[in-house]
Amino acid sequence: MSQTQKSSVRKQVLATATEEFFENGFAGTSMRAISALSGVSMSNIYNYFKDKNEILYVVLQPLLEAFDCLLSRYGDKEYIEANFSSIGDYQTSVVNEFMEILNNFREELRLLLFRSSGSSFENFQYTFAEKYSQANSLCITLMKRRYPHIKTDFSNIFIRSLSSFWITIMGEIITHDELTPSEIKHFLEEYIQYSTAGWETMMKQ
Amino acid sequence: MSQTQKSSVRKQVLATATEEFFENGFAGTSMRAISALSGVSMSNIYNYFKDKNEILYVVLQPLLEAFDCLLSRYGDKEYIEANFSSIGDYQTSVVNEFMEILNNFREELRLLLFRSSGSSFENFQYTFAEKYSQANSLCITLMKRRYPHIKTDFSNIFIRSLSSFWITIMGEIITHDELTPSEIKHFLEEYIQYSTAGWETMMKQ
Repeated sequence: MSQTQKSSVRKQVLATATEEFFENGFAGTSMRAISALSGVSMSNIYNYFKDKNEILYVVLQPLLEAFDCLLSRYGDKEYIEANFSSIGDYQTSVVNEFMEILNNFREELRLLLFRSSGSSFENFQYTFAEKYSQANSLCITLMKRRYPHIKTDFSNIFIRSLSSFWITIMGEIITHDELTPSEIKHFLEEYIQYSTAGWETMMKQ
Repeated sequence: MSQTQKSSVRKQVLATATEEFFENGFAGTSMRAISALSGVSMSNIYNYFKDKNEILYVVLQPLLEAFDCLLSRYGDKEYIEANFSSIGDYQTSVVNEFMEILNNFREELRLLLFRSSGSSFENFQYTFAEKYSQANSLCITLMKRRYPHIKTDFSNIFIRSLSSFWITIMGEIITHDELTPSEIKHFLEEYIQYSTAGWETMMKQ
């Protein structure tokens, strides 16, 4: 079989699997269904993918990369120092980043957050929060360097919980499909105001 | 079979199921395993419970009742009016209520939040947030009646997201078993300070 043929078989399996995962979730999709609907035999599917979890991983990869990209930017000292002089700036920027991910990957996010049970992604919120809280800790450290009088000795669990909250926000938006873009925008402005006031008060103590 | 015998069979099934659910989660526990480990035949188990989901429901019932009780108290006009004159009071009281549930039902919460996939409870966080946001809306309305100058026209999604956040907090604490009681107490004080400052600022606009 030529490379082109191989590549098209792989694509066909992924296209079918994506549709099935979006429709029925990870647990509700069987390898048998992917095989029947894609017209690729079970044994041939296993030539391309180790198991159903690996297919899910490939389907979610663009979304996971977008998260990693966000994390690496907000975990970068120079980027933070060059772009943010206040907690308000930072919060606004983060909101925009998360909303871009939400706009680009709504179905993938729904699958990841609500329909990935049984896969290796089922506790995504908590593993993400762990990583993202490191970026947030760095931001706080850099703020401290710039404004030495501020209080910055927050507990890890506090920073982690607020990091985890970004996933909660995305989950709430996805759960409510009836929200219009302007309602979402208004909500995010409320959240920026709320969280900025919260952080500023904490830092003044 | 006497009532006493029946009752003891039911108890035996529940005790075994509880242990298995805590150990292996809902999806990882089979009716066959419950039957083998409890010594009650499959067909006899079905005399007591419709299905595995109903057994989970009974196991989680004390926890679910504790949540309902919290919701009904914080959804009660007289209770709120009599007990809280500020958002800070209210936040502190809510923290204590959630922590009491966490202390009394840690294993049940872990099962409900992280290991109930495949059951009717798998999206508990979002259904709970929906109900709890009604209680929070009531609290805001009552604050407005007492302090007419405050701003209270927050979006539903904002109130719902902050309601949802209580489950995120419990989830983060459960995920980190290494936290000592005094670390948890400190974290909750941080959160009360943060959220009170956030709400107060929002209400002043």
